[in-house]
Amino acid sequence: MVQKQYLTYNDVHKLCQEAAPEILEKFQPQLIIAIGGGGYIPARILRSFLKQPGSPNIPIQAIGLSLYETLPSDTTTDSPVGGAPEKEGTEVIRTQWLDLSALGEMFNLVGKRVLIVDEVDDTRRTLEYAVRELEKDVELARAKLGVQGETKFSIFVLHNKDKEKKGTLPKDMMEEGRYMAARTVGDAWICYPWEATDIDEHDRLAKSQGVEEHAEHNKLA
Amino acid sequence: MVQKQYLTYNDVHKLCQEAAPEILEKFQPQLIIAIGGGGYIPARILRSFLKQPGSPNIPIQAIGLSLYETLPSDTTTDSPVGGAPEKEGTEVIRTQWLDLSALGEMFNLVGKRVLIVDEVDDTRRTLEYAVRELEKDVELARAKLGVQGETKFSIFVLHNKDKEKKGTLPKDMMEEGRYMAARTVGDAWICYPWEATDIDEHDRLAKSQGVEEHAEHNKLA
Repeated sequence: MVQKQYLTYNDVHKLCQEAAPEILEKFQPQLIIAIGGGGYIPARILRSFLKQPGSPNIPIQAIGLSLYETLPSDTTTDSPVGGAPEKEGTEVIRTQWLDLSALGEMFNLVGKRVLIVDEVDDTRRTLEYAVRELEKDVELARAKLGVQGETKFSIFVLHNKDKEKKGTLPKDMMEEGRYMAARTVGDAWICYPWEATDIDEHDRLAKSQGVEEHAEHNKLA
Repeated sequence: MVQKQYLTYNDVHKLCQEAAPEILEKFQPQLIIAIGGGGYIPARILRSFLKQPGSPNIPIQAIGLSLYETLPSDTTTDSPVGGAPEKEGTEVIRTQWLDLSALGEMFNLVGKRVLIVDEVDDTRRTLEYAVRELEKDVELARAKLGVQGETKFSIFVLHNKDKEKKGTLPKDMMEEGRYMAARTVGDAWICYPWEATDIDEHDRLAKSQGVEEHAEHNKLA
């Protein structure tokens, strides 16, 4: 039985707030790429905290990546909600990609500092896909436009599940600290508030869980 | 002095939940287009409530539209946060547009039911721009691909400000009830939670405001 962990919206808001100073210091992102649907909400919240007085908002571009379970019958189905543990035989499907034509000076990613945002890093498949495909875009732009400059991708997730990963991220990204998780958790089922059908009950579960954790912590202390 | 109205995340969640049955009944959307940044969060929440058992999630595509204030010096600046009253001389800037190439059968909008989501309808400039430009895309696709079928756009916003509008929406959309606001409010400054730098204080203000409104209501009753 996988343990469920409930997050309130304010929990999510505060995780973004807490992470923002380090993101500003280490990454100084010029563009946020939100992986939808789970990354939309943290990306939008994070942007408020990354805003610098006198500077415009950091643009957010959304890409859509869905995990599909490949069933034995060769049909596919939506995988469960974002925080749920991923099943075997899951593949990444692209449902939206960048539209850089409208971004003015951000029209290509060459030489830019780009922060990729998602809610959870479960098997790392989605993040691997995102970084690999974005790097391909950078190479294409370099070749096509003849522009130079180093593109730096960084990653922010609310939760990294401490488990065996199926996907890998570039070695230099990990070594240079360009991967950041607000929290590292066990292989829990993380229940994000935007998936709650009864948000009051969801908040009660989050609160009672907090109380239990606190009691557990005191017991251990 | 414009009155400020504070919304908690759970308020936003419940506005989406409350609106979902009517949206499902009247619009049956096949695609959600979220106007970023303000539309991302309501769109993502709404999708949870529009999900039908046994059916895949409704895809969300994000478009980026920003309001820029044209200053006398001919430079532009970010307009204030979404819920703040718009100033004169504001124009809509496109920062991201659709990428339909990745959407499979949704690769064009012809013959589709499309729900446009934003957080607030202030002067209606942004919504006018979105509908007009999306309709252009539909006409282009019709001409280019030779496909037929009526595209139905509908709109969902959390708040419609009851004020003189600078933008207009198609007459048939309004007449057929394809414009829906969870709440119609006066010309207030709506403070959405994702713009709060202190979410606990924000929630306290929302709560005390609710108490005041309740008291006001009782006094009037």
